Amino acid sequence: MNETKNTAKAQLPEPTLRRLPWYLAYVQLLLANHVEYVSSTQIAKEINVDASQIAKDLSFLNIKGKTRIGYEVKTLVKELSDFLGFKHKHTAVMIGAGSLGGALIQDIGLSQYGMNIVAGFDIKPDIIGTTIRNVPIYDINDLAEQQKRLNAAVAILAVPVEHAQDAANKIMESGIKAIWNFTPYRIKTPANIVIQNTSIYAHLAVMYNRLEVSKDTKK
Amino acid sequence: MNETKNTAKAQLPEPTLRRLPWYLAYVQLLLANHVEYVSSTQIAKEINVDASQIAKDLSFLNIKGKTRIGYEVKTLVKELSDFLGFKHKHTAVMIGAGSLGGALIQDIGLSQYGMNIVAGFDIKPDIIGTTIRNVPIYDINDLAEQQKRLNAAVAILAVPVEHAQDAANKIMESGIKAIWNFTPYRIKTPANIVIQNTSIYAHLAVMYNRLEVSKDTKK
Repeated sequence: MNETKNTAKAQLPEPTLRRLPWYLAYVQLLLANHVEYVSSTQIAKEINVDASQIAKDLSFLNIKGKTRIGYEVKTLVKELSDFLGFKHKHTAVMIGAGSLGGALIQDIGLSQYGMNIVAGFDIKPDIIGTTIRNVPIYDINDLAEQQKRLNAAVAILAVPVEHAQDAANKIMESGIKAIWNFTPYRIKTPANIVIQNTSIYAHLAVMYNRLEVSKDTKK
Repeated sequence: MNETKNTAKAQLPEPTLRRLPWYLAYVQLLLANHVEYVSSTQIAKEINVDASQIAKDLSFLNIKGKTRIGYEVKTLVKELSDFLGFKHKHTAVMIGAGSLGGALIQDIGLSQYGMNIVAGFDIKPDIIGTTIRNVPIYDINDLAEQQKRLNAAVAILAVPVEHAQDAANKIMESGIKAIWNFTPYRIKTPANIVIQNTSIYAHLAVMYNRLEVSKDTKK
């Protein structure tokens, strides 16, 4: 991956990036409750992250608190949502409009976080030609052709594991540069493709294991 | 958290646990293609994890490859799926049956991975009393009462951020010991509660940032 320096947006460490939405969720609550200032110690207490870590994470965004007063809540909400890009619309296509893909198209939360799904693609004849929440479902083989018109920035991958790599290849051939991979398959991509793996089933495995361990501990 | 030793199931490092489903997804493909043996080097090449890391992860499960032959695919599939608990049925309730919660109830993938959602709970009068894919939606205030009958092991939390802590408190009062938290809010729980955070919107933030950086790099 290319290293960038002196650009408007630096590549932040992934753990920092994943914590920023937690801070945003919390300060949005504060704003709704008309709280004006918050200290990193208070945030730390609420969300279980070290206060020094919070201060460090926020300093990546050039957000600095004032001594004894803390951070201005309004500014924090603005800077965090601007930075996280949730306010920009990102055009996306859903690859695989079956159970999970169809469910994600229906989740309006994604559009609230800036992800605007404009089309779905599938291989199943009985799904192709239908719509889900007004989103049209096309034949996966028409992806490259449709992409000329759609100009999607992101492809969300929610196909069965055995089709994951094939579908990823079709995405890359269409010119889409970012893949949000919901399959547990580790697809192979060249370095210029942005890839984000979100295997919710992997998280399930972690939870099942913790549950078993806590049962065993009680014996 | 309690440390357990000499139990049937040790508490594995979370990164290991998250990689195991990737291995499983890959060896399931091999099994479907009638491949009999696979080496850690081959797995490494396919899924972009160091071969030594793979061998180490699998050794936690007491799975050892044979010199020159590698791992038996059939055994790997069996051991991994047994260990990950995907074959056992875990009874779950969905807390928040709105957009994301409703979508997750509809995702049959979850039941394939052992998560059996038997009921949903919400605060909205127009949702309470309806069903989603035959799953009945009850009033969140009836959770403790329903739980006596349902005996759910897991509560999936998919409510709006501002209700996350309240809903989590209701879950804990009902006696459910594991929370799969889909909200970006860091809920506070005592040490005996198993919690797994899956904020898909946090992953979105990571992807948006990487996209911005790759744009800047090209300038």
